[in-house]
Amino acid sequence: MTRVLYDLCAADPAVRLSPYCWRAKLALAHKGVAFEARPWRFTEREALGFSGQGKVPVLVDGEAVVADSFAIARHLEQAYPQAPTLFPGGVAEARFVATWADTVLNAGLARMVVADICAALDGADAAYFRESREARFGGRLEDVQAGREDRLGAFRASLAPLRAALGEAPYLAGGSPAYADYAIAGSFQWAHTISAFDPLAADDPVHAWRERMRGLYDGLMARAPRAVEETAAAG
Amino acid sequence: MTRVLYDLCAADPAVRLSPYCWRAKLALAHKGVAFEARPWRFTEREALGFSGQGKVPVLVDGEAVVADSFAIARHLEQAYPQAPTLFPGGVAEARFVATWADTVLNAGLARMVVADICAALDGADAAYFRESREARFGGRLEDVQAGREDRLGAFRASLAPLRAALGEAPYLAGGSPAYADYAIAGSFQWAHTISAFDPLAADDPVHAWRERMRGLYDGLMARAPRAVEETAAAG
Repeated sequence: MTRVLYDLCAADPAVRLSPYCWRAKLALAHKGVAFEARPWRFTEREALGFSGQGKVPVLVDGEAVVADSFAIARHLEQAYPQAPTLFPGGVAEARFVATWADTVLNAGLARMVVADICAALDGADAAYFRESREARFGGRLEDVQAGREDRLGAFRASLAPLRAALGEAPYLAGGSPAYADYAIAGSFQWAHTISAFDPLAADDPVHAWRERMRGLYDGLMARAPRAVEETAAAG
Repeated sequence: MTRVLYDLCAADPAVRLSPYCWRAKLALAHKGVAFEARPWRFTEREALGFSGQGKVPVLVDGEAVVADSFAIARHLEQAYPQAPTLFPGGVAEARFVATWADTVLNAGLARMVVADICAALDGADAAYFRESREARFGGRLEDVQAGREDRLGAFRASLAPLRAALGEAPYLAGGSPAYADYAIAGSFQWAHTISAFDPLAADDPVHAWRERMRGLYDGLMARAPRAVEETAAAG
C-alpha cells in the first residue's frame, strides 16, 4: 500500500512549508508508517479534486482519503492503534493545544514571516498568496511584516503556556512527544523553512524544545530543505 | 487531620472569589479529601506569615504548607495518588492549559469585571485592590471595565482553543473532568461570583461546559454565594 500525503511546496519543490502538513508528517512518523510526501502548490486545486476540497494536507491511505490535519491525526490513531498513541492526554486536550497553535501562535508568526513566504513561492502561487493574504491582513505583505523586531516581546510573551509546560516535562505530552507537540512544532517549522528570521531567543526553553523536536525521526524537520541559506539563519 | 485552605473572600466572608482558590478547592474535591475553606482577605498578610509569602491559596495539609494553586495540585497528586489523577494527560499539558487561563482568559475577564470585584470587597481590601490594580492597568477600574460589551467579540474569539476541545469530549480532560478543566472553571467562577455580567453566549458550548462544571461535587461552585443577586444574573 502506498500512502500519499499532499504537501504544500515552495518554488523549489523540495521546500515544504505548511504548518498543517508538518503536523501530518510528524503524526505519520510517530505512528511509524511509511508515506510519500507529494509536492503540491496552492494553484493546483484540480489535483485535489478527488478529496472534495482544495486544501492540504490530504492523506490518501489505502481506501481512505482524509483532509485536515486534525482529522488526519484522528484517522491515524484509529487506523494504527497498535503504534504509540498520538493522544496520551486524550483528544480534547490535544485539540486545545492545536487550536492555540492555529490561532495565537500562527497569527503571531504569520505577521513576522508573511512576506518571506511570498518570496519563496513560485509565480502563480505567489500571486494567489499575495492577493488572498493582503485581503486578509488589509495591507501589503511587506508592510504587515515590517517592524517584526518590535513585536518580538509580545510574541514571546504569548508563548507563556508552552514555556510553563516545558518547565514540567521535556515535551508537552510528557517524557516523549505526541500530537500536542507536533501541532506546535509544525508552526515553528513553517517559519524556519521559509525565513531566516528566528523569533525565539537562544536561551528560551522553547528554543531548546524546538531543537529537540527538529531532531526527531532521524531529523525529519532538521534535514528538510529551506528556502533560505542555512548561513542566513545564523544572522 | 484538619486540612485548611486559605481562601480569598469579599466583604461578605461567604463570597469566595479567587480563581486560583477555586482551582485548589476543585482539586481537593476531585481527590475526595475534606477541607475547611477559611476566609482570608488581601490585607490579612500577617495571617499567612507561616507560609513564607502573602498570597492565597495556601493549603495546610498536616505537616505540609503549600502555596500556589499549581503547587497545591502537584502536592495533592503526590499525597493522594490512590484517588483519580488530576493529570490524566500529564502535568505539562495541564500546566499549558492553566497558564493559558492565567494569561489569556484571566486578562480578558479582568477587564470585564475589575470594578465589580472592587465593589464587592470590604473597605481595606477595596482600597488595596484599587491602588494595586489601577497601577497595573494604568487607569481607573471603572474606565478599564467600561465598554465591556464591545470587547465580548474578541473575548469569545479568544476561547477558540477551549471551544474546539469541547467539540471532542465533554471535558477538556476527556470523559470526566480533571485539573485542566478546574484551571479554566476557576476563572469563570471568579467572574460569576462577583459580577452579574455574563461573558458567554447561552448557545456557546463553553457555556454548557461551565454549567456542567458548576454542578460538580454536589454543586461546589453552583451553591457558592455570590456578591450579586441571582436575579441580576438573569438580566
